[in-house]
Amino acid sequence: MKGTVLYGPRDVRFEERDMPKIEKPTDAVIRISATCVCGSDLWPYRGLQPIAEPTPMGHEYCGIVEEVGSAVRSVKPGQFVIGSFATSDNTCPHCKAGYQSSCVNREWMLRAQAPVLRVPNADGTLVPTPGNPSADQIPSLLTTSDVLGTGWFAAAAANVKPGKTVAVVGDGAVGLLGILSAKQMGAERIIAMSRHETRQKIAVEFGATDIVTERGDEGVARIKDLTKGIGVDSVLECVGTQESMMQAIRCTRPGGAIGYVGVPHGVELDGVELFFSHVHLHGGPAPVRQYLPNLIDLVLNGKINPGKVFDLTLPLEQVAEGYRAMDERRAIKALLRP
Amino acid sequence: MKGTVLYGPRDVRFEERDMPKIEKPTDAVIRISATCVCGSDLWPYRGLQPIAEPTPMGHEYCGIVEEVGSAVRSVKPGQFVIGSFATSDNTCPHCKAGYQSSCVNREWMLRAQAPVLRVPNADGTLVPTPGNPSADQIPSLLTTSDVLGTGWFAAAAANVKPGKTVAVVGDGAVGLLGILSAKQMGAERIIAMSRHETRQKIAVEFGATDIVTERGDEGVARIKDLTKGIGVDSVLECVGTQESMMQAIRCTRPGGAIGYVGVPHGVELDGVELFFSHVHLHGGPAPVRQYLPNLIDLVLNGKINPGKVFDLTLPLEQVAEGYRAMDERRAIKALLRP
Repeated sequence: MKGTVLYGPRDVRFEERDMPKIEKPTDAVIRISATCVCGSDLWPYRGLQPIAEPTPMGHEYCGIVEEVGSAVRSVKPGQFVIGSFATSDNTCPHCKAGYQSSCVNREWMLRAQAPVLRVPNADGTLVPTPGNPSADQIPSLLTTSDVLGTGWFAAAAANVKPGKTVAVVGDGAVGLLGILSAKQMGAERIIAMSRHETRQKIAVEFGATDIVTERGDEGVARIKDLTKGIGVDSVLECVGTQESMMQAIRCTRPGGAIGYVGVPHGVELDGVELFFSHVHLHGGPAPVRQYLPNLIDLVLNGKINPGKVFDLTLPLEQVAEGYRAMDERRAIKALLRP
Repeated sequence: MKGTVLYGPRDVRFEERDMPKIEKPTDAVIRISATCVCGSDLWPYRGLQPIAEPTPMGHEYCGIVEEVGSAVRSVKPGQFVIGSFATSDNTCPHCKAGYQSSCVNREWMLRAQAPVLRVPNADGTLVPTPGNPSADQIPSLLTTSDVLGTGWFAAAAANVKPGKTVAVVGDGAVGLLGILSAKQMGAERIIAMSRHETRQKIAVEFGATDIVTERGDEGVARIKDLTKGIGVDSVLECVGTQESMMQAIRCTRPGGAIGYVGVPHGVELDGVELFFSHVHLHGGPAPVRQYLPNLIDLVLNGKINPGKVFDLTLPLEQVAEGYRAMDERRAIKALLRP
């Protein structure tokens, strides 16, 4: 089997790897229907998050179960399944509290840009769809594995509720799906911070009511203008830089909330500024497993079409071009078909 | 009139100052029944928060209204009133959202360690009691002005609810009243972090079920032990140092919440650690005005006795001894009587 391996900055190779197989009785092996490149894959791709050795890549996946270990009960061969980028037993105290991405048995999925994938803790990680989905549903279902689940968590963590005013920092796929999520949760006004025309268009399709093209202090000032100087109720921080975090904190009204899901890179929060901002701060790796059943329903019932974030589809063996296109911002998100 | 002025590290003077008078139609002038020294006063007293010039001190107060400006409607001369350390108009959007300590017209009270005090925005800041309280109710009523309101906010911000497990970092008056607040909110288990016997005793009186004497990593390990490795649901951070914040973050379970009310001094939060901790973070200057009516009721109905945190009572002119006693940890909190 060939799979994706990152060797160093901008050096993605599709090369021979061992065929995954059942290693523990709780494993499943699935044949992947679609996988993709994540915005977070670009951090090591760009050399901004150094890797110690050649690293298999990919953590977003859906596909057909090929084989399960002897202890697996909730999925079986032939079923179409989706799982999170973080495995979970779904029974530990953290899972029961809805934080499956902090499961005591968590493993980070790493090898999903490949035709076949071993999934540990299959019972607690994978969710089967009722019957097999149609080909045109697969891109949207794939988003539930990470990017939609992450946008959804950003909105939930930012306490988005009906009637609220929301700002979204970041116009990558997570930010765009954060807009979709906020809309689903009843937000009245959704301000997208974006300076890219194609992304602005999708933002509006997903529910954005305002576009702010300014960044940093100017972006904050613009949002204050739009909200009579008050600031917004909720901010979805979907980038993970110092600038984006400060932008989020400074445009939130006292008592408002920030849901931050961009993996932080070089972020240091000053205690005094945070204290006097009076904001709520919550975030982290999204507990996708918690949301999967609901998000799968919304997709299969045609209520949402998050697959629109894929503006590039490639055969899996051209994965390196997927990275390049996203790195150069020619594509929002690249879908890969084995 | 004589009042309290800080000249520099450990240099508190009780000296002649102008008699406060009505300056704006929205002002009230009150004759103070009791005031006190705050833990936060110790930062500049110790030179850890430099002051540029001699600074009048004191922001906790209650007393009898002497005079009101022509625009004041809700309080009148002769009434006993309590106000917050932050003034508020109680009508702006931030006030209406319950964050009166971020009022757009906020002023920090600064001159309350004195016999007479001018209070700006009297209508939005002061709350009168029904009739005049008895002398023995005054210490408890005084705590509602800051230290109880702040402990209450810590518990509310930490999302304390019936049945929850709570840890309290800091055994000063705010920490102790955070314990009392958590108990009032129905917490089942309250772990006080304290190594001082007299404070432990009050902690237990206020509702603490466990005492942890370890600090830092050892304190975190002890709390993990006490909670089967899970961590607590809520932490009240009532100190404001890097060590206390990290202790709070590290002993909270994923999805749990930290209410932080210790004014941060030298606190820098690492984005990556915060992200993977999965905690909720909320805090800031307590919106005491929001809580005053309820807290005054609880005191007057004898439901709580927060005045127990005053273990030293001095005539106001001995204010410097109050600072010394608290600095040397001979006293938890010093009450001053004009």
